[in-house]
Amino acid sequence: MFKSVGLVARFDQKPALKLTEELAEFLTEKGLMVCVEDSLEGKVACKQGFVPLAEMKTDFIITIGGDGTILRAAITIPKPDTPLLTVNMGVRGFLTEVEPQDVYEAIERTLKGDYKIEKSTKMAVSAGKEELPDALNDVVISTGEPSKILYSEICKNGKPILKCQADGLIMGTQTGSTGYSLSAGGPVIDGEVDAFVLTPICSLTVFHSLILPTDATITFNVLRPEKMLVLIDGNYRKTIATDKLTVTVTKSKHVTAFIRFESNFYDRLRNRLLFKGTE
Amino acid sequence: MFKSVGLVARFDQKPALKLTEELAEFLTEKGLMVCVEDSLEGKVACKQGFVPLAEMKTDFIITIGGDGTILRAAITIPKPDTPLLTVNMGVRGFLTEVEPQDVYEAIERTLKGDYKIEKSTKMAVSAGKEELPDALNDVVISTGEPSKILYSEICKNGKPILKCQADGLIMGTQTGSTGYSLSAGGPVIDGEVDAFVLTPICSLTVFHSLILPTDATITFNVLRPEKMLVLIDGNYRKTIATDKLTVTVTKSKHVTAFIRFESNFYDRLRNRLLFKGTE
Amino acid sequence: MFKSVGLVARFDQKPALKLTEELAEFLTEKGLMVCVEDSLEGKVACKQGFVPLAEMKTDFIITIGGDGTILRAAITIPKPDTPLLTVNMGVRGFLTEVEPQDVYEAIERTLKGDYKIEKSTKMAVSAGKEELPDALNDVVISTGEPSKILYSEICKNGKPILKCQADGLIMGTQTGSTGYSLSAGGPVIDGEVDAFVLTPICSLTVFHSLILPTDATITFNVLRPEKMLVLIDGNYRKTIATDKLTVTVTKSKHVTAFIRFESNFYDRLRNRLLFKGTE
Amino acid sequence: MFKSVGLVARFDQKPALKLTEELAEFLTEKGLMVCVEDSLEGKVACKQGFVPLAEMKTDFIITIGGDGTILRAAITIPKPDTPLLTVNMGVRGFLTEVEPQDVYEAIERTLKGDYKIEKSTKMAVSAGKEELPDALNDVVISTGEPSKILYSEICKNGKPILKCQADGLIMGTQTGSTGYSLSAGGPVIDGEVDAFVLTPICSLTVFHSLILPTDATITFNVLRPEKMLVLIDGNYRKTIATDKLTVTVTKSKHVTAFIRFESNFYDRLRNRLLFKGTE
Repeated sequence: MFKSVGLVARFDQKPALKLTEELAEFLTEKGLMVCVEDSLEGKVACKQGFVPLAEMKTDFIITIGGDGTILRAAITIPKPDTPLLTVNMGVRGFLTEVEPQDVYEAIERTLKGDYKIEKSTKMAVSAGKEELPDALNDVVISTGEPSKILYSEICKNGKPILKCQADGLIMGTQTGSTGYSLSAGGPVIDGEVDAFVLTPICSLTVFHSLILPTDATITFNVLRPEKMLVLIDGNYRKTIATDKLTVTVTKSKHVTAFIRFESNFYDRLRNRLLFKGTE
Repeated sequence: MFKSVGLVARFDQKPALKLTEELAEFLTEKGLMVCVEDSLEGKVACKQGFVPLAEMKTDFIITIGGDGTILRAAITIPKPDTPLLTVNMGVRGFLTEVEPQDVYEAIERTLKGDYKIEKSTKMAVSAGKEELPDALNDVVISTGEPSKILYSEICKNGKPILKCQADGLIMGTQTGSTGYSLSAGGPVIDGEVDAFVLTPICSLTVFHSLILPTDATITFNVLRPEKMLVLIDGNYRKTIATDKLTVTVTKSKHVTAFIRFESNFYDRLRNRLLFKGTE
Repeated sequence: MFKSVGLVARFDQKPALKLTEELAEFLTEKGLMVCVEDSLEGKVACKQGFVPLAEMKTDFIITIGGDGTILRAAITIPKPDTPLLTVNMGVRGFLTEVEPQDVYEAIERTLKGDYKIEKSTKMAVSAGKEELPDALNDVVISTGEPSKILYSEICKNGKPILKCQADGLIMGTQTGSTGYSLSAGGPVIDGEVDAFVLTPICSLTVFHSLILPTDATITFNVLRPEKMLVLIDGNYRKTIATDKLTVTVTKSKHVTAFIRFESNFYDRLRNRLLFKGTE
Repeated sequence: MFKSVGLVARFDQKPALKLTEELAEFLTEKGLMVCVEDSLEGKVACKQGFVPLAEMKTDFIITIGGDGTILRAAITIPKPDTPLLTVNMGVRGFLTEVEPQDVYEAIERTLKGDYKIEKSTKMAVSAGKEELPDALNDVVISTGEPSKILYSEICKNGKPILKCQADGLIMGTQTGSTGYSLSAGGPVIDGEVDAFVLTPICSLTVFHSLILPTDATITFNVLRPEKMLVLIDGNYRKTIATDKLTVTVTKSKHVTAFIRFESNFYDRLRNRLLFKGTE
């Protein structure tokens, strides 16, 4: 039974802040221990108090925003497997589960245990020996400067498999396949496939993407220029000297746990990624 | 130990026919039982005789041609798992292993057992209750007429997942991901990933391809027009009434067994699919 | 002043047939000479009578359907420059001007002369010395069989410029750039640019499309296979022996004249070709 | 008759520096006034002296490098229409004319007047009222940070035509259509077509590119974020406050003048942009 809940919201939208406040009160009345992300202090009223996202050890977390809010929560929360109930107040919100008008019903169902957990594979990322945060969506390696070419060699289990010239490289999970990789021409990966996707950005290769097994160790060895920027889930950034360190990606031990009801992957795909005039 | 060998070659190239004749003699001298595909009778001399491809039950088979020759052999031979030693006399020959100048050494190594078997997943295809031939590369569903739109609904394990308007749909294996699916904008799939790829031809969908698990049952339910053409590996064709039958794809029990030496998937990718001016 | 009008409609939709009947009556009451396409005889009532599309010499023509209906009219009518008032009863209807609910107002404005004419460039197409119908959208050259490769050489003003291996080649006008060429990965061309677009279907070339000047003579010389299918605007088909004839495309002397009101190219692009969730 | 020549080379390649030195001596012996780009001082010997590229007012200029070297010269030289003889010492060198081994013959022909001038259209770019350098290849507008989305509105002759969410926008000339725009999925534009190409980077739009007339005024109005980076020909950078200024692109009065011999656009396309295994 969930006894405590954290609230995470996008900062820049009045409706998201208003809903956060209403949910804090509603959940308090329900008898839950409620804490709100401390960056919302001053913007949102909450009787029970605020904690930094990095210390939010509640039984579950409600995100109010789009995919960006979810990614920010997933990369920061101290217990990575904490279930997330995700409310859509974003533009596209592919990863979100509940529309704002349905959030109260969703909370009731959640508290009754009437939901499924969808576990999303994450990637463990390291730069040399340093562990970087796990990625729910993607790791992007680039020069850090627009339209500068990155020359890289990609290894699988220590063996070089490809050289690539591109603005950057996107290594995405199944979840991330509907995110940045998609906009760079990558495929959508069904969540039941054990695969990651490597999609170059602005590259003259004959293939749009390469589908790789999740149990391999993929290493990115950047030949030029001297520095590369590693960007995880659009949130975490690190600049690395390319002659000293390589970036390595493997399957993480952790997952992100989404609270889901009837919706599934393909429902979300149809609703949020298809065209006007198509079904 | 291999005691018998079959020879399969492309019909339309003198050098392929010449090499077939030379190999028939060489293998005969080595003491093997040799038979040549009967469609080459009259074009190629062989002391030991000719058999139809559909009756070629030899211990292994040598294909002399490009990917088309391999696909033709794979779809026709009576024992689907017969090891194939593939000699490249095609334009691109992505699936082939050996260049013509290296074929004698390759045969020596094969006869000594100094090789690896690469097993390629195939797809079992059925139209209603009728089983069609297994696909090594791909199943293509289309209207059978150029630039006519096929309206289809795609189901995964009996549940509708997508509707699609396209010239056609390519369902490819990992092996097939470097074939027709690639030219329609699909990704390359590493052979270690348990996945099939669905790539629409000339469709205004937001994604180039969808990566699906091999253990699912994928059904294609064509809504319009009244007939569809099913094309397997570019070789087998069947026209089907769309209101009566659906096409179903699952993982086949059979594989295609390629005789491989040092080369691997990425070596072949680099040599045959990359650009001038890239490494 | 327009004194006569022709009505052309798609056959397969009750609402389109009903609207055609209502418009025939409305236009008759307005005092116009009205004739309906003869293939609708029996499906639609019209007091004044029916004529074949190929003999429809009215002052203007109303099309009731989608882009397919417009293309069929444009390729068949005896005076190619007859103004077309286009009512959208299609799925996407990119070329259409008026939604069904606005058609009466549109007719009033048309009869008052309160409209603009948008002239769309057409392509003159010939096979050897034989002139084929002009293309408003596109000429597609293919093998006539799904997923068979066409090997072709493309010449500009008699000089070879490219060789291409593809399922087919789409040569599109500015108008056609939002049609089949788009679904094959081609760009959208602003109507003010004097250019045609050549887009290969399922080809492993490094570029999606080639933009060519309208004042050049473009010749398609097919090397293999022995026959090619020429398809104009999805309506006219001709099979040609590839060793005897080449297909030549130039700018036509004729245009298609669309009756337009406030809408322009980019309004139509936004309304009919953009995504859910984008503006 | 050319009496003076400037030499411009890439800094980072020994063979390019060596050839520069040899050419300086060869051209001096021929009686020409020779000056070398001053950034090469210390790396290259030249009896006659060094001048900054921005003051290189010679009768013609020889570039020794790839497209980057040409773009750097074109954006910096004081007389923009100075003829350029371009020697290929780059990776792909699409714009270059002469391979290193043919450079002496090319110089002889140039000095005899035995060449053609190919004039490449440039774009005039301004940020508010400030004129920025002309672009030979492209203007790229982005957030200046990798994988941050730019929300923009694009106007043609003052009228909004499209809104776009993308990593960035590439506005390219015909010449630039084989450069960065191509790697982002854009088409190749024949140099005889009066058109520019707008290609979004990593955008979920239905079209890869939009082809625009060169005589229109195209304005980029960035809505978010607060700053944008304008990058011209990969060389000139300027950061602009998006709420204050818009970026405007028109056809420049100036051209870049390339010295060409037999080669034409399509020869260069075939040699440098096509695949292994294709002709």
